[in-house]
Amino acid sequence: MAEERGLRVLVVGGVACGSKAAARLKRLMPDASITIIDRSSYISYGSCGIPYYVEGLFDDVMVLNETPVGVRRTPQFFEQVKGVKVLTRTEALSIDPISKTLRIRNLDTGEEKDLPYDKLILATGARALRPSVPGIDLQRVWTVRNLDDAEAIRFAIERDGLKKAVVIGGGYIGLEMAEALTLRGLEVTVVEMMPHLLPHMLDLELALLLENHIRQKGVRLLLNERLQAINGSGTVNSVTTDKRTIEADLVIISIGVKPNDQLAREAGLSCDPKGGIIINNYCQTSDPDIYAGGDCVLNSYIHPFTERPIYVPLGSTANKHGRVIANHIAGIITPFPGIIATSLCRIFDFNIGCAGITQKLANELRLDVETALWAGPDKSHYMNGNPLIIKLIASKRYRILLGCEIIGPGDVSKRLDVAVTAISLGASLDHIAYLDLGYAPPFAPPIDPLLTATHVLLNKMNGLAKGLNPREAYRLMQEREDLILLDVRTPQEFSELRLNDPRVVHIPLGMLRQRARELPKDKIILSFCKVSLRGYEAQRILNAEGFDKVWFIEGGLMAWPFGNLISS
Amino acid sequence: MAEERGLRVLVVGGVACGSKAAARLKRLMPDASITIIDRSSYISYGSCGIPYYVEGLFDDVMVLNETPVGVRRTPQFFEQVKGVKVLTRTEALSIDPISKTLRIRNLDTGEEKDLPYDKLILATGARALRPSVPGIDLQRVWTVRNLDDAEAIRFAIERDGLKKAVVIGGGYIGLEMAEALTLRGLEVTVVEMMPHLLPHMLDLELALLLENHIRQKGVRLLLNERLQAINGSGTVNSVTTDKRTIEADLVIISIGVKPNDQLAREAGLSCDPKGGIIINNYCQTSDPDIYAGGDCVLNSYIHPFTERPIYVPLGSTANKHGRVIANHIAGIITPFPGIIATSLCRIFDFNIGCAGITQKLANELRLDVETALWAGPDKSHYMNGNPLIIKLIASKRYRILLGCEIIGPGDVSKRLDVAVTAISLGASLDHIAYLDLGYAPPFAPPIDPLLTATHVLLNKMNGLAKGLNPREAYRLMQEREDLILLDVRTPQEFSELRLNDPRVVHIPLGMLRQRARELPKDKIILSFCKVSLRGYEAQRILNAEGFDKVWFIEGGLMAWPFGNLISS
Repeated sequence: MAEERGLRVLVVGGVACGSKAAARLKRLMPDASITIIDRSSYISYGSCGIPYYVEGLFDDVMVLNETPVGVRRTPQFFEQVKGVKVLTRTEALSIDPISKTLRIRNLDTGEEKDLPYDKLILATGARALRPSVPGIDLQRVWTVRNLDDAEAIRFAIERDGLKKAVVIGGGYIGLEMAEALTLRGLEVTVVEMMPHLLPHMLDLELALLLENHIRQKGVRLLLNERLQAINGSGTVNSVTTDKRTIEADLVIISIGVKPNDQLAREAGLSCDPKGGIIINNYCQTSDPDIYAGGDCVLNSYIHPFTERPIYVPLGSTANKHGRVIANHIAGIITPFPGIIATSLCRIFDFNIGCAGITQKLANELRLDVETALWAGPDKSHYMNGNPLIIKLIASKRYRILLGCEIIGPGDVSKRLDVAVTAISLGASLDHIAYLDLGYAPPFAPPIDPLLTATHVLLNKMNGLAKGLNPREAYRLMQEREDLILLDVRTPQEFSELRLNDPRVVHIPLGMLRQRARELPKDKIILSFCKVSLRGYEAQRILNAEGFDKVWFIEGGLMAWPFGNLISS
Repeated sequence: MAEERGLRVLVVGGVACGSKAAARLKRLMPDASITIIDRSSYISYGSCGIPYYVEGLFDDVMVLNETPVGVRRTPQFFEQVKGVKVLTRTEALSIDPISKTLRIRNLDTGEEKDLPYDKLILATGARALRPSVPGIDLQRVWTVRNLDDAEAIRFAIERDGLKKAVVIGGGYIGLEMAEALTLRGLEVTVVEMMPHLLPHMLDLELALLLENHIRQKGVRLLLNERLQAINGSGTVNSVTTDKRTIEADLVIISIGVKPNDQLAREAGLSCDPKGGIIINNYCQTSDPDIYAGGDCVLNSYIHPFTERPIYVPLGSTANKHGRVIANHIAGIITPFPGIIATSLCRIFDFNIGCAGITQKLANELRLDVETALWAGPDKSHYMNGNPLIIKLIASKRYRILLGCEIIGPGDVSKRLDVAVTAISLGASLDHIAYLDLGYAPPFAPPIDPLLTATHVLLNKMNGLAKGLNPREAYRLMQEREDLILLDVRTPQEFSELRLNDPRVVHIPLGMLRQRARELPKDKIILSFCKVSLRGYEAQRILNAEGFDKVWFIEGGLMAWPFGNLISS
């Protein structure tokens, strides 16, 4: 058989990186003998789809194990189509890097043996973190990692008519599950120990907008709250936090994952003390004949802001690692450029994306940044666009984009991917401002929101626009008694919705040039409108009239996340 | 009044570039005295929205003249809010660059006078081309440029119950109108003199897919056909081409636009012999105190492939020009980097985007390019993705992306904008291949289609993938009698849809390793599947088995635009 000739390659783990590396390497080196070893009974599945299966978007969980044209990715499929041997229900026990062998055990028969390799690929993935609290092993306490979990959750909901769910962890997988369970009619509580949701993705002011949205959808959010125990006998019936006890028919644990680096660590390969295999740009470990990729490794940020490796486990990165590994083994030298920590998710009607660094992280790294927050519709108004909130974080010195956060019901993912491309390529803000992005009414306004947000940022950096983001404005409103909140919207808009604050002064923008003299020049004025396009205009008009203590509230009422609004 | 102090700026034309330049300049230079002069009775409207008004998406055409929050952009609005004076129904007659004056005429009173300027901005736009054929001035023969046209078209359809429409010109505005009229229940014929639709945007094989889609929607397409006369007495009743006569209750003329450069030309400013004002990167004309932007100017391509200026009139570019002009007058030196000829539109259920250069243009410019055509869903299969067809054109020498064309029901605009950003920034293909684009099941598969298409391109450039695009494959099928069309899909897929050709051999991919010996090594083999992922895999398997005359058909049956398919 062809498989007995050529380079011997073993792949431990066959989900994303492993199956990609194996399949591509076989195409590149048809003579190679490639074997995938996996503990599970199936390989190459899309665990990212689990929330959509639980929600009921499709009924057979094994759909997550199919190719785009509906072919099951069975071990037989891999052998026949890809020419790759697959050993399922097989555990990799240890590596001997000197003799270049991998010791494996068949989980059904218990039989152990040593397999020789020329190149070894570790794609051992990650495991869900489980908090060490009493009751963690009760029935109906699940993590969300594999298809067995998924089936068990859905089966239990459907068979047993479960009513109350508690999700531990307000990261995006926890929130996707919270949505799925809500859509199935369950009463859902999310418990997050951090002060806001998605703390690694969003700065506070955007996280607050998401929290408002999720609460409107009926989910109970408990922030700054820590799980202490899971209660029940046999089966869970409640959860105790440091603040209360919550009834629970099922519990989803989603507090993050930890890289499976034990095999590498025990073989003496370099790993991070906190977990994660260290690799170079070709996905080689400290042993050049052993590669690693996917959720078991640490990545580097594409730009050298920090020497620290970062851990952002994602199926997209895992697949790219697989390609880089196959290329390198076959002699095609294509370095993996690194990641920029892009994250994207949809939670109810909000799309949420981020890439690069948040303002919070920039502050921790002591980078001198300017930020801008923009709100507005994602299309021309007559095309019924949806709102978007965009926050950009840029280097003042280099005038390049460092990070962005985008949320809202509008088309987030497009603007995110453009920002990702621009950040990755080190684009100057001045270049981004004039990108020839596609324009047609069904897709965007003439100037795309990402470009408009960049214009705001440049206007701030040039000293033309003086903006405060909602959090800064809110803090100032609390610290200073004697400021003026200048609402420059139309009377119609003002009658429908307004800030509930006695310091509000309402002057429609069209009257501002005439009525500016009604305002005091010695007080701080915060101007705003629906999205603060007019708020910015008001700042410029007042500047021209000799006012120098005027700031506009970035994003206006559309991006205002605090509760002090009254509508009629 | 403040308007009497400071720099005197005149702006001729107040639609996109003119109104943007005026409003921003006033924010930058509050003391400037700025006046917009426009022949029309309204300014600052979005003519790109006309097809959607005709379709019936909204009922008041003046919605196209509103700000995103629904405020009408009247001359009063501009004066009160923006601090910019507006003279409507006023024509600019001539420029005297020596004395720096503009002669204007009030169209209602006939009064003429000279206005002095320090800086003059020409934003005179473009006019619709009208073919010089008999009957062009008949009633119910319209172009699609301004809101009066739009209202007249819709009013006539609704009041007079028109049934048959002929659209002259198969560019995107003509096709948007063809869709709008079809959705209103009219019988629509499109007449295009070129051999395919959107000839400046798409290469033939993608244009054919669009043509198939538009025909399925009930539109009659007449290509390679030239308008000769419009017939009727008073009102149109038919149209005569070089091949036939077509009944017509109304005719839309959409054969392109021509820059309004007469004012500039008569003032001695540099213009292109074929039309269009020549500007530098700051939108200055050959007179540095006279700026020009928007549809009346020629642009440069962002990369120096060709010294020829290009004419791509778009509202997005016009707005950017306005910003660049205001900045430059105010002393903020931000060069306009140029355009990459991005175009985007939606025609029925197909989204169509392109940027950079087509393969046809690359050939004309004698660039050494490699291309790849990819087809597949825009999301993971379990999320009910929609098909996309992506064609990439890259420089072989520099390994950078030069152009892309994307069509299909899937999310085209996102991939287009990423490609635009990558092309603009001169990204290497190797970098694009690993961009950390957003991944979540509702938005994309783990490896975004644009990256997968880039992988195919790299595989072709590395000699690994041997692909033919559908047009090349079709030509080969016609030229060579003795080739084999190897369909490697499942029996199920094969029974549902297949190529109607006696040379088809069906071997499912899973059987190919075993059954390869059934195939002759001396004949050309063209392998394919639904999207040619398996077709490519078949090529590699057969290569490994010693076959060296194998090519896969790029895009598979999903991108196959020729009619020779049978379905059951």
